[in-house]
Amino acid sequence: MARSVKVIFLGGVGEIGKNMTALEFGDDIIIVDCGVEFPREDSPGIDAIIPDITYLRDNMHKVRGIVLTHGHEDHIGALPYYADEFDVPVYGTALTLGLVERKLAERGAGRIRLTQVNAGDEIKLGCFSVEFIKVAHSMAGACALSITTPLGIVFVTGDFKIDNTPIDGKKTDLQRIAEIGAKGVLLMLGESTNVERKGSSTSEMVVGQGLESIFVANPTKRLIIACFASSNYRVQQILWLAEKYGRKVVLAGRSMKGIVEVASRVGELKIPKGIIADGIGKLPPEKVVVIATGTQGEPSSALNKMSRGDFSKVSVGPDDVVVLSSTPIPGNEKSVYDVINNLFRKGANVIYEAMNEVHVSGHAYEEELKIMLSLVRPRFFMPVHGEYRHQFKHAEIARSLGVPAENIVIPAIGEVYGVGKSLKQHSNVPAGNVYVDGVVLEDGDAVVSDRRSLAEYGMLLILASVDAASGRMAGECEVIARGFNLTDDIERDIAGVVRDTVNGTDFDEDSLGELSRIVKKAVRKLFYRDRQFPVIIPIIVQD
Amino acid sequence: MARSVKVIFLGGVGEIGKNMTALEFGDDIIIVDCGVEFPREDSPGIDAIIPDITYLRDNMHKVRGIVLTHGHEDHIGALPYYADEFDVPVYGTALTLGLVERKLAERGAGRIRLTQVNAGDEIKLGCFSVEFIKVAHSMAGACALSITTPLGIVFVTGDFKIDNTPIDGKKTDLQRIAEIGAKGVLLMLGESTNVERKGSSTSEMVVGQGLESIFVANPTKRLIIACFASSNYRVQQILWLAEKYGRKVVLAGRSMKGIVEVASRVGELKIPKGIIADGIGKLPPEKVVVIATGTQGEPSSALNKMSRGDFSKVSVGPDDVVVLSSTPIPGNEKSVYDVINNLFRKGANVIYEAMNEVHVSGHAYEEELKIMLSLVRPRFFMPVHGEYRHQFKHAEIARSLGVPAENIVIPAIGEVYGVGKSLKQHSNVPAGNVYVDGVVLEDGDAVVSDRRSLAEYGMLLILASVDAASGRMAGECEVIARGFNLTDDIERDIAGVVRDTVNGTDFDEDSLGELSRIVKKAVRKLFYRDRQFPVIIPIIVQD
Repeated sequence: MARSVKVIFLGGVGEIGKNMTALEFGDDIIIVDCGVEFPREDSPGIDAIIPDITYLRDNMHKVRGIVLTHGHEDHIGALPYYADEFDVPVYGTALTLGLVERKLAERGAGRIRLTQVNAGDEIKLGCFSVEFIKVAHSMAGACALSITTPLGIVFVTGDFKIDNTPIDGKKTDLQRIAEIGAKGVLLMLGESTNVERKGSSTSEMVVGQGLESIFVANPTKRLIIACFASSNYRVQQILWLAEKYGRKVVLAGRSMKGIVEVASRVGELKIPKGIIADGIGKLPPEKVVVIATGTQGEPSSALNKMSRGDFSKVSVGPDDVVVLSSTPIPGNEKSVYDVINNLFRKGANVIYEAMNEVHVSGHAYEEELKIMLSLVRPRFFMPVHGEYRHQFKHAEIARSLGVPAENIVIPAIGEVYGVGKSLKQHSNVPAGNVYVDGVVLEDGDAVVSDRRSLAEYGMLLILASVDAASGRMAGECEVIARGFNLTDDIERDIAGVVRDTVNGTDFDEDSLGELSRIVKKAVRKLFYRDRQFPVIIPIIVQD
Repeated sequence: MARSVKVIFLGGVGEIGKNMTALEFGDDIIIVDCGVEFPREDSPGIDAIIPDITYLRDNMHKVRGIVLTHGHEDHIGALPYYADEFDVPVYGTALTLGLVERKLAERGAGRIRLTQVNAGDEIKLGCFSVEFIKVAHSMAGACALSITTPLGIVFVTGDFKIDNTPIDGKKTDLQRIAEIGAKGVLLMLGESTNVERKGSSTSEMVVGQGLESIFVANPTKRLIIACFASSNYRVQQILWLAEKYGRKVVLAGRSMKGIVEVASRVGELKIPKGIIADGIGKLPPEKVVVIATGTQGEPSSALNKMSRGDFSKVSVGPDDVVVLSSTPIPGNEKSVYDVINNLFRKGANVIYEAMNEVHVSGHAYEEELKIMLSLVRPRFFMPVHGEYRHQFKHAEIARSLGVPAENIVIPAIGEVYGVGKSLKQHSNVPAGNVYVDGVVLEDGDAVVSDRRSLAEYGMLLILASVDAASGRMAGECEVIARGFNLTDDIERDIAGVVRDTVNGTDFDEDSLGELSRIVKKAVRKLFYRDRQFPVIIPIIVQD
């Protein structure tokens, strides 16, 4: 086989290449990002889904380090779960590492060797060297990665947008990206999140203007603004507006307080002196702005608690204007709108959606993606992040910009590619869902699949005792149902089937387990016709 | 108490006044609509949610009839479940009743006395007289209702839009609505679905133009267009385009075939002669357009099966252009996008979203709602349909148009109002969720709440036997888990708690049930700290 750099897609079933990707050449492996996937409704009760690192475990002696593009959960959130396994340096910018430290402390996870880098730095990891390149995003410290391998440059965009007026003045470094493109890039992994949106994304600065108009229009009201705690630019603009309009700032929500502290400590947030109040205390409405967590309707967030009248520190009423500086992540709509409905019921004026320009996306739109592709000019291209439809459209864009169709591949989870003279698929590695429910589940697939069946159809517990001497049913069986509509008719049908099955089966004490399986199968058949598949648990004891 | 007409909100927890509303005066009750609410993720495994008719059952001797505004599921879908209870005439237009008959036959439900009306007709029901007024909507036969009561007119908009170029030429009868408004309307119930959308909705005609551009741009491809089977205007336009561009039409999906048959039979769909093909057979791609069900990603729909390669009649590939002439209903996004992703994977070109004007809404936007309010000029106003935030905004609009704030009320499920000289709230009636899972569930709330717990946390079954003589545990307990991550540590903890509890409790054979409750409580405590609430079922037997 010709020499090639392996690209291994380990994390992100929903969004390929977002949570974790590895590069391998010879005896060296580097890992890009180590994040969680947010659980969806088909994995009930699950806190997070983390990458399957079986392949890395088997090749741990080759792993040289982990490089982090930025500090969002879906790029760093799995580190606490794997802290004890990765005894390698972890590289990221100040805010990224500050957030990693906070996460590790929160979960009481082991120590990790964190090494801070700045945009522009280049680090050496085995045969790879990784240059961090400043990109604009919805938080500070985001970087694209230019990874020089023995066979050429692999360029990873990470999450990015091209914001020409970022509020910290640190723009996406198009100049440097152009230089790298001019040198020649072997392979580009490009994020595809907003490929369906035409034109270019709006600058974060515009949100400040939208929020300012709300400050101006509501001089007598208390303002409650919800945004992601990690959106340091958003928080910064609210702090500046509070200063300008003479309001104190109250931070609501554990993560808001924690992340503001981190961002301020690493210098990515300038807190005007004396502006933070410990609580609302006796401050009149017009002297306060509350910055709260809960833009996604999370049950335990400050905003959700306020909407339910369950947040002791802030009681929402007609004196309040509540702003959701956000957009619901697909799947969260119901929770978000429940919160909005409840805030309206409390008499507050609620401002949401784009009507007041109170939110912009942190991801590049179609025209920005074209600019990135035009500057990087990769020989091979893989669209990553986003669902298949996004990857597909991003591939089409690359083709329209001159990347030959045969040089473009849409990767999927678990796939391994070799890139060098060509871009070829190798055999897959284990990848996919590792579920976290408090702890990492050992047999998560079974737990989640049982939960799905239990949710959809409920369960039936069947208690039967058999007479040891005759081998026949002793009395009737007892049926206990949970989440299942157990009518008298169904109960009678089950009792009949169980009796007939037990009485018609030869067994001894050793084969009680086998009898259970036969009974289960027989009972299950009762529900085939109605396409019901309750979880059935027979408990058969000898009398 | 002053004489008043009672307005009773019985159906639609999510969208008040959508599924069922009753009016009562003296000894007469009339019912407006009898629909289902679509289940959401918080009611897993549930097929449909139907109105609670306890109040009507208790007053069945007063019920004079059911009037239907139009034939959508959320307005007629509960009739089959209550067919045997309502021995009263049901009034609706031809398409509405055609769809009701189809539903009744499908479920083998009892007969209902169906009486067809036309827009413009007025019927007498006890002290009420009900005039059906033509409104445009996404299907034919939709009507607003002008209900003359002894105390004045109650005007129910039903679902509507103001389409000035409907494809059947039958516009919303603004002239007649203006006349009624001029006479004086006591109370208006106005739908609020699209109140958040500025301006006016787009005409259905525009969808025909959007679809035509796809026919023109893809002369060599097979076209597969998914839309609601009940959207007879949408289907009509596809039939016309097929005729114009020389393609045969294949109907895919049981409800598409059934509803097209109904719409054609009642004259609301004109099928060009010989255009329907039984199947694709040997027809080349460019000679076919498939009209399919499945715009909402429903698992058993034609489009979903095609996307999984599971639909024997149509195998999707690179020769296909698939159009989703629809928008995902909130909550269905994941399923819809899964279908789209899979169709792309099969190589098809998929057209969705508004980019090609392949869908328009059937509900009035803000400016249309203002026109309706301005024509009806009600003394009292109640915004209905939609979530609280929609009702709230619709109430604001009514205020801005001159309805006094004290004459506007936002009703909620189960509430009863008296309208006459004033609009006053009476005491509530039973209302809310009646769950259907194959059949109507008797204790649906318990079933659904168990399913929620099972889904979120799973279940633990604890089998313990106690020695009758000593009253102490005989051996160790056995723990069976489903959907729960049962580790050795947890199993040990449970065993310890069960042993200590049993051994520390006095009981005899009669109090084994009481002992079970004590054990359950003790085990449950183990999981409080981690905020886990598995369903715990202890089975304790005497040895």
